[in-house]
Amino acid sequence: MQYGFGVDLGGTTVKLAFFDGEGALLHKWEIPTRTENDGENILPDIAASIDTHIKDHGIDKASVAGIGIGVPGPVRADGTVNRCINLGWGVFNIEKALQDLTGLPVKAGNDANVAALGECWKGGGQGCENMVMATLGTGVGGGIVLGGKVIPGSHGAGGEIGHLTMERDETDTCGCGKHGCVEQYCSATGVVRLAKKHLENCDIPSPLRGIENLTCKDIFDAAKEKDVAAQEILEQVYDYMGRFLGDICCVVDPEVIVLGGGVSKAGQMLLDGVRRYYDKYAFHACRETRFALATLGNDAGVYGACKLILDEVR
Amino acid sequence: MQYGFGVDLGGTTVKLAFFDGEGALLHKWEIPTRTENDGENILPDIAASIDTHIKDHGIDKASVAGIGIGVPGPVRADGTVNRCINLGWGVFNIEKALQDLTGLPVKAGNDANVAALGECWKGGGQGCENMVMATLGTGVGGGIVLGGKVIPGSHGAGGEIGHLTMERDETDTCGCGKHGCVEQYCSATGVVRLAKKHLENCDIPSPLRGIENLTCKDIFDAAKEKDVAAQEILEQVYDYMGRFLGDICCVVDPEVIVLGGGVSKAGQMLLDGVRRYYDKYAFHACRETRFALATLGNDAGVYGACKLILDEVR
Repeated sequence: MQYGFGVDLGGTTVKLAFFDGEGALLHKWEIPTRTENDGENILPDIAASIDTHIKDHGIDKASVAGIGIGVPGPVRADGTVNRCINLGWGVFNIEKALQDLTGLPVKAGNDANVAALGECWKGGGQGCENMVMATLGTGVGGGIVLGGKVIPGSHGAGGEIGHLTMERDETDTCGCGKHGCVEQYCSATGVVRLAKKHLENCDIPSPLRGIENLTCKDIFDAAKEKDVAAQEILEQVYDYMGRFLGDICCVVDPEVIVLGGGVSKAGQMLLDGVRRYYDKYAFHACRETRFALATLGNDAGVYGACKLILDEVR
Repeated sequence: MQYGFGVDLGGTTVKLAFFDGEGALLHKWEIPTRTENDGENILPDIAASIDTHIKDHGIDKASVAGIGIGVPGPVRADGTVNRCINLGWGVFNIEKALQDLTGLPVKAGNDANVAALGECWKGGGQGCENMVMATLGTGVGGGIVLGGKVIPGSHGAGGEIGHLTMERDETDTCGCGKHGCVEQYCSATGVVRLAKKHLENCDIPSPLRGIENLTCKDIFDAAKEKDVAAQEILEQVYDYMGRFLGDICCVVDPEVIVLGGGVSKAGQMLLDGVRRYYDKYAFHACRETRFALATLGNDAGVYGACKLILDEVR
């Protein structure tokens, strides 16, 4: 029986977890991410925390396959991180660095891709080899898993599905500098943006008009209460979502599409809405593709990170 | 040294080729595709032709890795073909059937995917592990190669890039039954369709107006001669191409995009035009992605088919 560590490195917190080789989560804990001095303490802190865990639990180090780690930025196939702005890091090989500190094999990946791998292994995509994960949060991220492996891409942009161009005539600018990206319509902020535009351009009375800091949840809640304006807004959102997911399926044709992130808290209502438009836009061979909700929440990253290293050493 | 056979099965002709293990094409030839009686002769004809080739050239059968074959329809991972309409075939395992007839290992794939694999191995994508091939012909097909392997998809729709939705308000219907597919703007027929619409909707004089059976080549030729209407038409086409290729790169992020098919005979002019719009629509991390023209022409299929079987047995 081999064990593995999964590490999900975020800008404020590092999540760590210890798994058995079948993917049962045995322990999990967190430490703060110390970003001062160009983040020089981050990896030593992780190494020390893992070392303490091994000693405290009397784990035989020889039974540990290694450490998988998801980082908030692009990671090249050789383990080089290329500027993680939130961490203050420059360019260096994180796999080699953490391996030197721990004496354990290390495999690194981009955090969104790693979370997708986690959902494929033990979450909404469990049992599938081919999966598209769309994380509908503040932005839209994602990950493509094919044959059980995450697709990092040649420039670390595999699964950057928030930036397909939906509207070439969009005048607002996306955070990436382009115009008309998926993220501008399908993220939590994108949904609110669409809602404000819609309310400006119509006279339908709606409780949404009285809400000062309108949120994505307000809009789903109002639609559940049969508010017409909210329903119209969500039809637009579902249309965009069904279309970009249909486009992705023409490219990689997964078994399952897993929806995660804050927007996915709308649950079955979201799945049903997106499905209606997906059925309109999807290529006929992809009409049977299954939709599922992400199930691992904030643990997706540690699961996926552990899977990374287990796959690497097997 | 191992050898391999590559077979590209088309609706009127079967192309066959014999390669060494490094991918040098040693012999190639063709036989007719006999589709009568539900295509019952097709595989026996192929088997007989390969058997004759082995005997005529005194090839040691033990040195042959096997036969790769590209077929005009979806092929499941287990080798089952699922109705090749052009061939009269139903549902059966082509790998097992051809293996029983020849005594050689067989690996089958969809013809467009197999051609993409050929271009990646020995054509426009040579030296790359991650490639998107777009075949701009009568329709638009393609193939996605990641880590040197073609992505067949869970429903045989991997690389069906002709059916991303470009215009959700399109009133004309695509051959697939949807509206606004890539194929309606970027195939040879799509380019002509756009041209006719453009000429109807403007008064600019153009030699294109006098051509009875307008072809895609006529439009590229006129644009080369600085015909304004033709140039305007091609700007529309390049815009669509740059956009859908940019969308695909957000998903799988290849090293290189290879353009093939009849439209790609426009050569560097096409690459330059598409590149201008790709640079506008592509996610920033994918801006360095290389463009290349397909180089193997009608031989791409036999190359890719041979690569399929060499990968399978190695």
